[in-house]
Amino acid sequence: MIENIYIEPNQSNFKQICERPKKDPKGLSDVISDIFQNVKENGDQALIEFTERFDRIKLDVLEVSEIEIQEAIDQVDQELKNAISVAKKNIFTFHEAQVTAPLKVETMQGVQCMQKSVGIEKVGIYIPGGTAPLFSTVLMLAIPATIAGCKEIILCTPPNENGKVHPAILFTAHLCGIEKIYKVGGAQAIAAMTLGTETIASVYKVFGPGNQYVTAAKQYAQNFGVALDSPAGPSELLVYADETSKANYIAADLLSQAEHGTDSQVLLVANNAKIIDAVNEELIAQIAVLPRKEIALGALENSKSIVLQDECKAFEFINLYGPEHLIIASEEYSKYTDKIINAGSVFLGNYCPESAGDYASGTNHTLPTDGWAKSYSGVNVDSFCRKITFQEITKKGIKNIGDSIIKMAEGEALMAHANAVKIRLEKYKNVES
Amino acid sequence: MIENIYIEPNQSNFKQICERPKKDPKGLSDVISDIFQNVKENGDQALIEFTERFDRIKLDVLEVSEIEIQEAIDQVDQELKNAISVAKKNIFTFHEAQVTAPLKVETMQGVQCMQKSVGIEKVGIYIPGGTAPLFSTVLMLAIPATIAGCKEIILCTPPNENGKVHPAILFTAHLCGIEKIYKVGGAQAIAAMTLGTETIASVYKVFGPGNQYVTAAKQYAQNFGVALDSPAGPSELLVYADETSKANYIAADLLSQAEHGTDSQVLLVANNAKIIDAVNEELIAQIAVLPRKEIALGALENSKSIVLQDECKAFEFINLYGPEHLIIASEEYSKYTDKIINAGSVFLGNYCPESAGDYASGTNHTLPTDGWAKSYSGVNVDSFCRKITFQEITKKGIKNIGDSIIKMAEGEALMAHANAVKIRLEKYKNVES
Repeated sequence: MIENIYIEPNQSNFKQICERPKKDPKGLSDVISDIFQNVKENGDQALIEFTERFDRIKLDVLEVSEIEIQEAIDQVDQELKNAISVAKKNIFTFHEAQVTAPLKVETMQGVQCMQKSVGIEKVGIYIPGGTAPLFSTVLMLAIPATIAGCKEIILCTPPNENGKVHPAILFTAHLCGIEKIYKVGGAQAIAAMTLGTETIASVYKVFGPGNQYVTAAKQYAQNFGVALDSPAGPSELLVYADETSKANYIAADLLSQAEHGTDSQVLLVANNAKIIDAVNEELIAQIAVLPRKEIALGALENSKSIVLQDECKAFEFINLYGPEHLIIASEEYSKYTDKIINAGSVFLGNYCPESAGDYASGTNHTLPTDGWAKSYSGVNVDSFCRKITFQEITKKGIKNIGDSIIKMAEGEALMAHANAVKIRLEKYKNVES
Repeated sequence: MIENIYIEPNQSNFKQICERPKKDPKGLSDVISDIFQNVKENGDQALIEFTERFDRIKLDVLEVSEIEIQEAIDQVDQELKNAISVAKKNIFTFHEAQVTAPLKVETMQGVQCMQKSVGIEKVGIYIPGGTAPLFSTVLMLAIPATIAGCKEIILCTPPNENGKVHPAILFTAHLCGIEKIYKVGGAQAIAAMTLGTETIASVYKVFGPGNQYVTAAKQYAQNFGVALDSPAGPSELLVYADETSKANYIAADLLSQAEHGTDSQVLLVANNAKIIDAVNEELIAQIAVLPRKEIALGALENSKSIVLQDECKAFEFINLYGPEHLIIASEEYSKYTDKIINAGSVFLGNYCPESAGDYASGTNHTLPTDGWAKSYSGVNVDSFCRKITFQEITKKGIKNIGDSIIKMAEGEALMAHANAVKIRLEKYKNVES
């Protein structure tokens, strides 16, 4: 159950209640810079050695072979294949709708401004290993990457102790058209995608979740000109409840978040204390039979329930927290929707569990955590694009706009900026064209 | 003139030629963390002391008063006001067209996915002081911020030795509806917008150019959960020239970039050596009479001319460089447009100087430098928004999608994720609802 309960906390305490549990990242940066240095100097050999050390398997070949992919396709059971295909279709449909047409606006006669989305040429997807084979994250990253038109999409994921990648990950990657899959994990995978090795080509942006080493490595990659999807932290869920909520559904949703890791955080904000008590009862009952019970219990220790009867105060709190996932667990969810300013992805109504968005509804599950929802979007097609602007100015156009440019350039004391217009307007006397 | 000339360099050398001049950032991080610490502990008092030390003026009040704004409006001459208004209209028109309508897609019956752009609640704009009063940057940041619907927009800029802000900056800020303007510059301004002080409210994202201290402070702000527009480096321009280019126009454009600072870089890529010689002659003539001659000469030392007769090779080089500004200085620019993959903003044709986009065409001039155009867009309306996703699932909807979610959750060994669906489908036997 959630033991930290705040009844009508004062607004001046909101910021403190919103604070996430923090880990001490000291010493991490030295580890990461050593790994990058080693990969830079020794390329594939460094990857093979790190894999032997961290994943306990000595590989001869880093790239997943076609035979391995075919074996994986054969191994995944048909029901799971069907489920993944349903999810793929939904995710594709929603993300394809996000594509924006090129924009063309004539701001003045003869002055055309354009904006065009262009896929990032080279992107890298990281899929963690560990206790759960996150094939769903393959869908969430590979689908928008292909829609965006990224030309090179590579995927890194650590091998298991037998030197294999989980078949569902390989099946899903293949289904999404990813051809280059490498058996390398951790910070060394990020280093490889950043710096390139004999086998793995460097990319311009890396995507995907991971432990604190992966997260720190993604941050460090920026020093080499490689972008990252978003600053990542532990996953989190905030549920807003009212009189129309169902305690058993809420408890199930909170546990679905809590089972991710002991560092996950779940928050329950309600307009009455009754629902909080009811959810706690349900939590006790439901957690008892959960395979990942210990993890969920650990996460619940970080968790909080907050009673705020006043709707405005409640959403002030929610927007200050800026949850990664926000469930509006109410039959009357539409009356709250407009109050939501800061959240990664929002789940509306009593029949909309977070796991729908985690897997199959169509929205992306790679979302901003740790309050970054205040300034970052979740991954979407734009995350794999740049919007390049173009301007096309005719002789007539520069006549129309030229004097304004000259005046402003002179106002900023940048005479060469003014000259670049003057010379085209033949107002430039120093040099004859 | 540009003394570094590469004639038909081998593709294997492209990467090296693309390298930007690097500065050693050592020692900077200690300075920045000290400034942040001081602002955190001492608030406004720290800002006042830093301003006295760095800007040589002791201020009593940090906020620009209404009287000062009114005085500024009176001081700006009418022609400049008109020019700024023309620019504002064009920038507004082009950026307003970038607004995306909310998206609603039914991916399966009863499963609605939505995406909505929501303005970042609190944003900070930094406008540097120094030799040029960059009122144009006020337009470029304040206009998309207001279009995006940001609720709190604050502006920081350092005062001059008389404790005043340049009137054109105040006029422009006022014209754009910015009400909170503070006289504070440098890393301490970024620290104030990150941490908040008695006078200056903290924000969620900071925008704007600045020297290496400001840039480092923006990076450092991320440790406190504050986002930044993009990693910034010195400004740069690449011009592509062919037989239809005009050497005097190109020289004027290169100089308009070179006058920004000695760390600016200009590149000229051409399909023939003749135009490079002609541009060099023009550079010598035009630079002689330039007020910022010394700065421009310094920048030209970092600069390079490259002859690549083969169009494909030339654009391979250009895309590897990923210029902030790219001028296609050709009458036949349309035949090159599709080859452009990596650039911040592109200027098409012989009558389209970079200064058009710097000031008034309508596109944004806050653009990715240092190769970041490969993964970042320039500032646009999206830079001031988050795209929040929503899903709305009916009882029918969860029946349609439920089994796929359960199968996938089980495939990832996340049973609580499956339970959150099962309980809604009444397939969950452990706890009765």
